[in-house]
Amino acid sequence: MESDERYHLPADQRLTFVLVHGSWADAHFWDGVAAVLRSRGHTVYTPEYAGHGKDPNKDVTHAMITKSVVDFITKLNLHNIVLVGHSFGGTVIQKVAEQVPDRIKRLVFWDAFVLKDGESVVDEFPLQMRQGFEQLRASSKDDTLMLPFPLFRDSFVNTATLEEAEQMYASITPEPAKPLFEKLDLKAFYALPTPKSYVYFYQDNAVPQGEGFGWHPHMSMRLGQYRLIVGDGDHFTTAHTRPAMLAQKLYEAGRY
Amino acid sequence: MESDERYHLPADQRLTFVLVHGSWADAHFWDGVAAVLRSRGHTVYTPEYAGHGKDPNKDVTHAMITKSVVDFITKLNLHNIVLVGHSFGGTVIQKVAEQVPDRIKRLVFWDAFVLKDGESVVDEFPLQMRQGFEQLRASSKDDTLMLPFPLFRDSFVNTATLEEAEQMYASITPEPAKPLFEKLDLKAFYALPTPKSYVYFYQDNAVPQGEGFGWHPHMSMRLGQYRLIVGDGDHFTTAHTRPAMLAQKLYEAGRY
Amino acid sequence: MESDERYHLPADQRLTFVLVHGSWADAHFWDGVAAVLRSRGHTVYTPEYAGHGKDPNKDVTHAMITKSVVDFITKLNLHNIVLVGHSFGGTVIQKVAEQVPDRIKRLVFWDAFVLKDGESVVDEFPLQMRQGFEQLRASSKDDTLMLPFPLFRDSFVNTATLEEAEQMYASITPEPAKPLFEKLDLKAFYALPTPKSYVYFYQDNAVPQGEGFGWHPHMSMRLGQYRLIVGDGDHFTTAHTRPAMLAQKLYEAGRY
Repeated sequence: MESDERYHLPADQRLTFVLVHGSWADAHFWDGVAAVLRSRGHTVYTPEYAGHGKDPNKDVTHAMITKSVVDFITKLNLHNIVLVGHSFGGTVIQKVAEQVPDRIKRLVFWDAFVLKDGESVVDEFPLQMRQGFEQLRASSKDDTLMLPFPLFRDSFVNTATLEEAEQMYASITPEPAKPLFEKLDLKAFYALPTPKSYVYFYQDNAVPQGEGFGWHPHMSMRLGQYRLIVGDGDHFTTAHTRPAMLAQKLYEAGRY
Repeated sequence: MESDERYHLPADQRLTFVLVHGSWADAHFWDGVAAVLRSRGHTVYTPEYAGHGKDPNKDVTHAMITKSVVDFITKLNLHNIVLVGHSFGGTVIQKVAEQVPDRIKRLVFWDAFVLKDGESVVDEFPLQMRQGFEQLRASSKDDTLMLPFPLFRDSFVNTATLEEAEQMYASITPEPAKPLFEKLDLKAFYALPTPKSYVYFYQDNAVPQGEGFGWHPHMSMRLGQYRLIVGDGDHFTTAHTRPAMLAQKLYEAGRY
Repeated sequence: MESDERYHLPADQRLTFVLVHGSWADAHFWDGVAAVLRSRGHTVYTPEYAGHGKDPNKDVTHAMITKSVVDFITKLNLHNIVLVGHSFGGTVIQKVAEQVPDRIKRLVFWDAFVLKDGESVVDEFPLQMRQGFEQLRASSKDDTLMLPFPLFRDSFVNTATLEEAEQMYASITPEPAKPLFEKLDLKAFYALPTPKSYVYFYQDNAVPQGEGFGWHPHMSMRLGQYRLIVGDGDHFTTAHTRPAMLAQKLYEAGRY
């Protein structure tokens, strides 16, 4: 994996990445990874979407989030893109792909939701955790969900040191709840012939690994034929502490 | 993982470990790991329990084993402990946690049984293996189980050299059978709010990995919210040949 | 794993390997691995079988393929062999083992089919992929299956560079279809006491990893008691680019 390709990539192997972050994150989530990919000759975009980053309005729908990314791609007139979704971003690239399929070379899901037609994100959690999310939602004044630190520490950054965990926790903000509870129509997605990849990190337990649950193979197998790339990491820490490793895995998932 | 924290751990990150071994082992199982953890500034206890080590009486119950560990903890008046169970030791820390919950900072299951309420250890094996254990039990004069070498070599020390396998086999003694067949009341355990971690080694096939079986995710997911740590190793060899790696994983599972 | 045993193996630890390749491959698939194993003191045979290599006749049955390997073993009067099957080769060693059980020290399945009694290879694929194979078969003039490059690239050589993928694709030829669709009588296999190992590479998605599908644990667990060895690799690339790693894993699976 430490081959020369990283540093002397021929022009025809340089890719255009559009990286779509997940919940409790904003576009800065990708800063380290994007820098590595650019240093290897790739073009990288990290669109922000509704309800996140500097957007003061947290009252957003899944359609508004999707529109943010679609508008970003069409305004810049991007083509032949490797569209990467992380976590909740998986549901976003599912819907974006329905709207601009001709602009997409390949979809890459990195520990990302691949929802079934008619399903919501919270449908993919075991009952006890789903009820936990519902309680968090009910106790919010502005219909957002904030992860308690113990849950974040054990489920999102399980491999981090305490210092790293606290640093990452300091950067997260309450997440608009509604898009996580919306059931999505994905019939068009499942008719798309777009090539797909799934990147799975085997210490990622943010959605519990398990019988009838989990990123891979439970959700990945819904993609039908796809390219599998596996690595060692958890849900949030790797982007922060090992961006070069993550960049390499995303490249392996996206390349020709 | 080779960070400075290993060697210059601040006082507030030093942990108190209580390590509970599994079947066909005694407290010396932990010698290598305990030495590494102590060298990094942690306090480590490795209690022996009824029917094991120098105890000549093999006619023991699960309750007697639990009592050995509870008594050890209370007599030394230990608090804020990271209580680690390996293999059968998982069932022991489940029951110990019911009795001294206020003394436990976190439970760590390392390729350990997490039994359902009302279940026994042998209930977690496929039918063919359960019958094998029953035959071993029936052929014993003192109600103990001895692992035949071929089973031990392929299921417990699959990654070892033959020389290492024979060396480890020389140290095992017949295991009291009764505690493996006892069905445990675990209602109190499942009501405990104690934080939990699961350490999974992906070459560990001592309980067969599989659909409806296995350490992880089959048993780990019973913990509800927990911290997952994954590493490369099998059931017995790692403690013998790579104690520093195992110590690091247990630290990652137990730290704040 | 980089221990001295690799290079100074005592005579009583030298093994006799018979390596049986899978579909879309011929005996040259093993060239790199065989060279490494021989350099470490092992004896290695890589029999070609009916319908493959220089055999112009593609109209073969599973029984003819099995006979090729059985005849190879009996003509050379081999004994105490470690019989390794890769992919489709798993079904071949299942049938070979039925015919010459006394010559076999251990069976090693490396990301290989372990069929149930009465099952065919295509029965182990999800419906959509099985239908894809049926369409490929229907469109063939000589009842062979040729993998389209996109399927080969994403499912067989997912971790390869594009250059490596194209190089490996150039070496594959259409595969006789019939043996993949034949349902095999395996009652005798499942009565054999022969020791068994399963080598699983966790980036191998050639048979989709998943709930109710996949190399491991879905098919491996049919072996009952077996030795598990896990490594990092995909279905075809590792033999090509990292033969020493693969040789070490096969040695760990086959050794005493």
